Amino acid sequence: MKRLFAFLAALVVGGLFAAPAFAQAPSPGAASGKERVVIQISTPEQRIWAQSLNYAENLRALYGKDNVEIEIVALGFGIGVLKLDSPMATRVAETIKNGVGVHACQVTMGRQKLEKADMLPDIGYVQAGLGQIIKRQKEGWSYISG
Amino acid sequence: MKRLFAFLAALVVGGLFAAPAFAQAPSPGAASGKERVVIQISTPEQRIWAQSLNYAENLRALYGKDNVEIEIVALGFGIGVLKLDSPMATRVAETIKNGVGVHACQVTMGRQKLEKADMLPDIGYVQAGLGQIIKRQKEGWSYISG
Amino acid sequence: MKRLFAFLAALVVGGLFAAPAFAQAPSPGAASGKERVVIQISTPEQRIWAQSLNYAENLRALYGKDNVEIEIVALGFGIGVLKLDSPMATRVAETIKNGVGVHACQVTMGRQKLEKADMLPDIGYVQAGLGQIIKRQKEGWSYISG
Repeated sequence: MKRLFAFLAALVVGGLFAAPAFAQAPSPGAASGKERVVIQISTPEQRIWAQSLNYAENLRALYGKDNVEIEIVALGFGIGVLKLDSPMATRVAETIKNGVGVHACQVTMGRQKLEKADMLPDIGYVQAGLGQIIKRQKEGWSYISG
Repeated sequence: MKRLFAFLAALVVGGLFAAPAFAQAPSPGAASGKERVVIQISTPEQRIWAQSLNYAENLRALYGKDNVEIEIVALGFGIGVLKLDSPMATRVAETIKNGVGVHACQVTMGRQKLEKADMLPDIGYVQAGLGQIIKRQKEGWSYISG
Repeated sequence: MKRLFAFLAALVVGGLFAAPAFAQAPSPGAASGKERVVIQISTPEQRIWAQSLNYAENLRALYGKDNVEIEIVALGFGIGVLKLDSPMATRVAETIKNGVGVHACQVTMGRQKLEKADMLPDIGYVQAGLGQIIKRQKEGWSYISG
């Protein structure tokens, strides 16, 4: 009987003190130690587009390319960075080749009457850029406004 | 006696395995499945004001209007979107009618010597825009920089 | 025996209902009741630099200077706010004197061939601005895009 009590007590106390640990590492990514970062591009400024692409490069250098998962989400005025005539076409291609997710917001594309044929090859698409950013935040990804 | 043990054990084990669920959904909103998003407007650029109002519309379409709670907080250079002479007056009124919270920062109003009479009707007010955004982040709302 | 049961039950039930509280306050800062806020400056616009310095001042007024920990991280196009020729030199000095952390990103400094001798005195340095912002977010700090 005493053992059963001790076992129960250990479970209880373990539960109490384990809770903050769970709370500090809610996402699978955080638990596995891999950094996860979502970067929003929503400005019309081309120099900010370039800066956001730099961000991805910097993060890969900082954490090591195998230790970080990065998504760039272009929406609103930022969609231009992913259009066929983008001044950053070469850098976007390099970024994608480096394993960074680069996604266009299809809500924005609809508003601007853009088809996939109007966009850079090899990019990804998300139903809604904001939805993707919100989903990532809820999964525990860090959020950077580009 | 055995039943009592079983009951206690169930409580304990339930508590242990429930903890991560709580951790992943700390806010009442998240727990109820409703998305909650706070959008910051702090730029002087009118096209960014328009874009942030689009964001609210997009989020309502994405999640369904009854499944998302949205707050727009205007502060600093963004306060102009809520002034009586705002070029977005009609869109702000529509946004509010759609159930989106649209709040002016009273710290900014004080700095710019603005009274409520200088502002669009029907908007809300918060003591401090930053304080509101920080409060919402801590309550588990997603944060979008407009 | 009954008392022991009551004690165990109290622990269990306490554990169950305490869990969400832990989840809502995952960082040591939050647990101690102190607000913690990291502000990103990454724009070339000087008026936005001024606004971000205002933010720090506003937060100290809002929470009380002893109840908030603030870090400003300047990176990318924002690094200029911390250069020796910064138009905000006096305000930066005041901000630092008020106990706000003001940090330059050394990745940016490397890209722009800036040495510490090119920067304002008394500022702090971080290996990578993005890394610092991500670290703070993961520690439970609120994030404000300046």
